[in-house]
Amino acid sequence: MPAHDDVKTRKAAFLMAFGETARARRTALGLTQRQLDARMGYRGKFSGGVERGTRNLTLDNLYLLAAALETDPYDLLKGTQQPPPA
Amino acid sequence: MPAHDDVKTRKAAFLMAFGETARARRTALGLTQRQLDARMGYRGKFSGGVERGTRNLTLDNLYLLAAALETDPYDLLKGTQQPPPA
Repeated sequence: MPAHDDVKTRKAAFLMAFGETARARRTALGLTQRQLDARMGYRGKFSGGVERGTRNLTLDNLYLLAAALETDPYDLLKGTQQPPPA
Repeated sequence: MPAHDDVKTRKAAFLMAFGETARARRTALGLTQRQLDARMGYRGKFSGGVERGTRNLTLDNLYLLAAALETDPYDLLKGTQQPPPA
């Protein structure tokens, strides 16, 4: 495993990249964050944190988010690959 | 979004498929669950739940698990796609 700080930085970059992919998918569907949250059964304040890369969601919610975005978790993680650590 | 029960069943199948993918990757690396847990900084009882599909891990831990398995989260989710809901 790479050095601790490197993993921390790469993990934050992973969450940011995931957020950007989720945002792109949401806007492609023409949904607002509030509409997406409602699809997942949330009354707001869910997808905002995901898209900012600040919400550390669980696999359960990753699955629900993907379903609400009419896709699957594998597809949502497509934009998150990183070059292997040095 | 598909009916509630259908999402619940599909979500459980997703966690099971993810667990199987993680197990296959671990055994391909010749690691025990204890060795994998240690790579992630856990003293056991982490990867067992993941592989049984009973641990609802966060994206942070998904990232750490992938790094410990010398891959990335996108690759680990490869075997989890499902046919679209009926």
